[in-house]
Amino acid sequence: MSSAWGETVKMSIFGESHGKAIGVVLDGLPAGEPIDFDAVALQMSRRAPGRDSTSTPRRESDLPQVVSGILNERTTGAPLCALIENTNTKSGDYDNLKRIPRPGHADFPAHLRYGGFNDVRGGGHFSGRLTAPLVFAGAVCRQILQRRGVVIGAHVSSVADVRDDLFDPVNVSADLLSTLSSAYFPVINENAKQKMRDKIEAARLALNSVGGVVECAVTGVEPGIGGPLFGGIEPVFSSILFGIPAVKGVEFGAGFGASALLGSENNDAYYYDGDTVKTKTNRAGGILGGISTGMPIVFRTAFKPTPSIALEQDSIDLTAKADVKLSVHGRHDPCIVPRAVPVVEAAAAVALINMINLKTGGMEV
Amino acid sequence: MSSAWGETVKMSIFGESHGKAIGVVLDGLPAGEPIDFDAVALQMSRRAPGRDSTSTPRRESDLPQVVSGILNERTTGAPLCALIENTNTKSGDYDNLKRIPRPGHADFPAHLRYGGFNDVRGGGHFSGRLTAPLVFAGAVCRQILQRRGVVIGAHVSSVADVRDDLFDPVNVSADLLSTLSSAYFPVINENAKQKMRDKIEAARLALNSVGGVVECAVTGVEPGIGGPLFGGIEPVFSSILFGIPAVKGVEFGAGFGASALLGSENNDAYYYDGDTVKTKTNRAGGILGGISTGMPIVFRTAFKPTPSIALEQDSIDLTAKADVKLSVHGRHDPCIVPRAVPVVEAAAAVALINMINLKTGGMEV
Amino acid sequence: MSSAWGETVKMSIFGESHGKAIGVVLDGLPAGEPIDFDAVALQMSRRAPGRDSTSTPRRESDLPQVVSGILNERTTGAPLCALIENTNTKSGDYDNLKRIPRPGHADFPAHLRYGGFNDVRGGGHFSGRLTAPLVFAGAVCRQILQRRGVVIGAHVSSVADVRDDLFDPVNVSADLLSTLSSAYFPVINENAKQKMRDKIEAARLALNSVGGVVECAVTGVEPGIGGPLFGGIEPVFSSILFGIPAVKGVEFGAGFGASALLGSENNDAYYYDGDTVKTKTNRAGGILGGISTGMPIVFRTAFKPTPSIALEQDSIDLTAKADVKLSVHGRHDPCIVPRAVPVVEAAAAVALINMINLKTGGMEV
Amino acid sequence: MSSAWGETVKMSIFGESHGKAIGVVLDGLPAGEPIDFDAVALQMSRRAPGRDSTSTPRRESDLPQVVSGILNERTTGAPLCALIENTNTKSGDYDNLKRIPRPGHADFPAHLRYGGFNDVRGGGHFSGRLTAPLVFAGAVCRQILQRRGVVIGAHVSSVADVRDDLFDPVNVSADLLSTLSSAYFPVINENAKQKMRDKIEAARLALNSVGGVVECAVTGVEPGIGGPLFGGIEPVFSSILFGIPAVKGVEFGAGFGASALLGSENNDAYYYDGDTVKTKTNRAGGILGGISTGMPIVFRTAFKPTPSIALEQDSIDLTAKADVKLSVHGRHDPCIVPRAVPVVEAAAAVALINMINLKTGGMEV
Repeated sequence: MSSAWGETVKMSIFGESHGKAIGVVLDGLPAGEPIDFDAVALQMSRRAPGRDSTSTPRRESDLPQVVSGILNERTTGAPLCALIENTNTKSGDYDNLKRIPRPGHADFPAHLRYGGFNDVRGGGHFSGRLTAPLVFAGAVCRQILQRRGVVIGAHVSSVADVRDDLFDPVNVSADLLSTLSSAYFPVINENAKQKMRDKIEAARLALNSVGGVVECAVTGVEPGIGGPLFGGIEPVFSSILFGIPAVKGVEFGAGFGASALLGSENNDAYYYDGDTVKTKTNRAGGILGGISTGMPIVFRTAFKPTPSIALEQDSIDLTAKADVKLSVHGRHDPCIVPRAVPVVEAAAAVALINMINLKTGGMEV
Repeated sequence: MSSAWGETVKMSIFGESHGKAIGVVLDGLPAGEPIDFDAVALQMSRRAPGRDSTSTPRRESDLPQVVSGILNERTTGAPLCALIENTNTKSGDYDNLKRIPRPGHADFPAHLRYGGFNDVRGGGHFSGRLTAPLVFAGAVCRQILQRRGVVIGAHVSSVADVRDDLFDPVNVSADLLSTLSSAYFPVINENAKQKMRDKIEAARLALNSVGGVVECAVTGVEPGIGGPLFGGIEPVFSSILFGIPAVKGVEFGAGFGASALLGSENNDAYYYDGDTVKTKTNRAGGILGGISTGMPIVFRTAFKPTPSIALEQDSIDLTAKADVKLSVHGRHDPCIVPRAVPVVEAAAAVALINMINLKTGGMEV
Repeated sequence: MSSAWGETVKMSIFGESHGKAIGVVLDGLPAGEPIDFDAVALQMSRRAPGRDSTSTPRRESDLPQVVSGILNERTTGAPLCALIENTNTKSGDYDNLKRIPRPGHADFPAHLRYGGFNDVRGGGHFSGRLTAPLVFAGAVCRQILQRRGVVIGAHVSSVADVRDDLFDPVNVSADLLSTLSSAYFPVINENAKQKMRDKIEAARLALNSVGGVVECAVTGVEPGIGGPLFGGIEPVFSSILFGIPAVKGVEFGAGFGASALLGSENNDAYYYDGDTVKTKTNRAGGILGGISTGMPIVFRTAFKPTPSIALEQDSIDLTAKADVKLSVHGRHDPCIVPRAVPVVEAAAAVALINMINLKTGGMEV
Repeated sequence: MSSAWGETVKMSIFGESHGKAIGVVLDGLPAGEPIDFDAVALQMSRRAPGRDSTSTPRRESDLPQVVSGILNERTTGAPLCALIENTNTKSGDYDNLKRIPRPGHADFPAHLRYGGFNDVRGGGHFSGRLTAPLVFAGAVCRQILQRRGVVIGAHVSSVADVRDDLFDPVNVSADLLSTLSSAYFPVINENAKQKMRDKIEAARLALNSVGGVVECAVTGVEPGIGGPLFGGIEPVFSSILFGIPAVKGVEFGAGFGASALLGSENNDAYYYDGDTVKTKTNRAGGILGGISTGMPIVFRTAFKPTPSIALEQDSIDLTAKADVKLSVHGRHDPCIVPRAVPVVEAAAAVALINMINLKTGGMEV
């Protein structure tokens, strides 16, 4: 219950937005796993800011520097630590934050939680920038999973009221997931993307912001992974997904929609496809009783609109104990959802690597 | 990642539906807390089966027997263990389960997970019956929380497409929550309840089932509880809520709805109410940056329809490796949502007691 | 950091000496493991009180009742809970404990820790009786380990200044360990046992008590189990061994003796025995860098003398805030070391099962 | 069970001896704590190599670079990460390690554990160098503890058979501990130090090494900290102490010596010193039932002799599968015990900060 997560593979995230660097330690990775750092860099670039007008103008190369745990481009089995420097910081933008909390931000409750000693510059440890180490961790873990047949991919399924097509939860392919997971602002239906861009641009021009949903799928998870109660795929995945800043909802398979169905509509009928047990539909999202069924795992994660907006809002002055007006300046994403896609995929990778049995060269890890 | 959960107060749930008993150990409770066992019994009865035609005809008194950790109706500070006997078991109903998995149930993936050695009678450890120990744990924890000003209450916010009113997230009162949390099948708008009952009865008569949503609110949580990333209220709460069987979605505050809003619509404006900082709206559900704002905590949990239905479904015979038809007989709830209300409240209580600082008579626990 | 321990196999111990029952939950056992309950009963009887004049006259059958997790004498993979009833309780003996703490006991610090609300009857949750559930847990785990070639055995290596022979750390055999681990008051050199008994009887007649040391060995642990820093065999074993009441010292291999050696004396030279790497000596106790070498694991655990003695001692009256004299009556062991042998073995079994990779019928657990 | 440790304050250590850097993340520190980095540097220098002929000639400045969690020399409450660069590496010394494991080192079991992919240069993650981040962590935690009245200090209580005086466990003063904990090679009786130095120099000249014992005391721990079974001070402290490379034994209070005592000799009699409860002796080492009594906490940690010695030893060639001779060259400590003193103190600080209740400016952490 902190910035650390995991049991068999423990992830400890550190750093503040305008500090020296942010980073992550991954403890418990199997040894001998080749890590392709070009593939890691690709994931980092998908999340990095400043790509286009849908994201903050702050530019960071976000190239991770590996401190430990890698030798000759393979994992050594010792904890892997990577740093990502903060180079492009403009702390002057944030001078008033201690006094006037931004609506929708952690400013006010964090001020109480840390007695005013937290680093508020750029949101400090609450900044969305802290998802960069998570993407790094996921980029490492997904390669290890992929070598075992698991492929993870996600897309922007909605921005405000503009919707992409949803995954076909029965037939979603590893190929589609691979394509999505190497793209910036991935969608299934390219027509949706332009409408989403328009929506984001309109919000930006209106000094406002919009939210959206990321849908993620995982193929190649063998049936029988997970467990009952708190060891299920849903609780384990959600405990990391809800750790992503701005996430306010998570649902698996039919999710909230399942609550409106009859049992006969929601149950997925079994059948044999040759020797393999499959289900004709997949409203379970590949999970029953917390355990993988062998069908694709499918879930959706809802992101609230970026709280930092230049529109004038009502806030308070904690020093004067008075109501005041506030316009949040600085550099912000009018919509974080496109950049959140690789973050959701990364969370899934870190969650999943904690639920499968890992071995190194025949040795248990 | 098992049937155990928690850090400062560890909860370990055990038992199988048709075994000798089910139960729970709570390790880490503060000492000296008076526990009112009538109040505990009330919570157990809210979840107990057999109350009316909306639930399974299986009747269990579900009176917990305290084995340890209580002396003179106060906590001793040692682990509290309670047992709930299984008295009304009809295992004959379940003979075919090992061979023909029920669609929508854990049967098939659990068979793989446990190599066929799991107890399938009544769903074994995957049974919804395992929520009884959770309700017991919550009934103990909520009393400890209530003594510190925290009140938890929930209602059936929807059954299929029938909706109750939602909580006013700004003004929801401890009184309303107290009333809801002592009622069976609690709703805010009594008119909705009869329509929900009709929906459930229709499903029952059609040998089918329906799902629904439980909305829960918590008042009296002081601002500043929780933390960033995986220590936030959302990830901690969700990791126990998704452990409740049949839960497929969880959202906080505006939740998925927030994804369709503009920043200016979703941000909650601050103002001073005397010396107290409040927000005019509460789309955050009382949580920013994973930390409590002091406003009511509000979240919704989506339950899928009971997978056990008497309607004929397509399944498979794992022995014959052939497709077969299946009608699930036995005693089942046409809708589990009314009985799930105290379970959701209990999950919130156990989650929250792990996030606040507990003391015993001036001593740290 | 509580009465719960473990990661892959979590053990949660509960109960108080004069409460209704004590017991344990084991969460994470592999499914399908046959459990021989006669073998479990044998371990329980080795620890049970009242066998002869070396132990307390309190008699308890200590037959564990399995509540969950076992079906047809095999593990189901769900949490295994077992209860051990407290039948022979004489609480009248302990009436003064809240006022006058016994020297050498937990009475005084526990009074502060729990604000006076802890159950002091028979020592409550601090009683040595709480080792019974640990022995049960170990009896289950050691069967699972034995099926994988691991054998655990221990002996009373000293009582006061009377010493048994020590294990030959290079050649200790599984046969010897099996023999020891089914005996009450096991020693290697039978001559030592009578002298130990004499020492204990002399202490008993003098209304006093004596301490001693238990030496334990484990064979069949494949090389490569464990890890660096806090994941090593020594930290993991010690964190459970020091949880046994009355333990004040733990050492592995040459232990404290190694501190007086030269490097050339303490290093164990490698050689090939056919294709197998062995060491000529085993001062490492089978552990280097926290990892098993394949040689027998050997460690010693020091027990202080039973603090409850009938001899008059100086204590205080917490109510009167005055110094007083105290003679501890009731039924106590003049030496707990013989009964502690199966407890140490059990701790080793629970520790070790958390460090190896468990599978069920080809599925990972 | 890894290189991460702790619950309320989680410590995650990373790095390899000849990698880019080593370091640590501390997650869960209270916010607003002033950290004196001169005091931190003092602790680092006490452990740093190359001070005199008792330690390895490898010189490292070991100045920690804080990456996060500190602002204006105070903790922010976010995870504190610090790096320590590896500047003075001579990897050429270690080329044969993969083929010919050093007796007494982790080389052979680590080779199996990691399938040969671990970084063997300088011992990699198994190097004693990994105690530098632990000393850093302890240097931070001890300042926070000291502000709450807790003082930790240790001394070299023996080198081979040369013994320093032991602490007076009843009257050891915070002043003595403060003096010891700012010294290099601290002893109580200065006469002992020269004899220890002679012993070490003799070993060095003989191309050999010697072991020793570190005794540590902690004053100012209020009574009532800790708990029964695995939550006791002994199991918690030992689980970190045994994580220090080369530690083979840990004992508290009279420790192994208590096993030779009568109950009347080992029990510590209570008395009132004004309003304060004290004990006349302190064979318990300040701990009963796992809980602090308010008397000084005293424990001893046994270190084996440095396994790296230039004397010829018997080893094996894993490639040729043949027995060979080996002399370990490179730069090594003839005795690590003087440098281990601050490491033991640091372990105690990190353990203790996990057992007390921390607050930040009135807010719970």
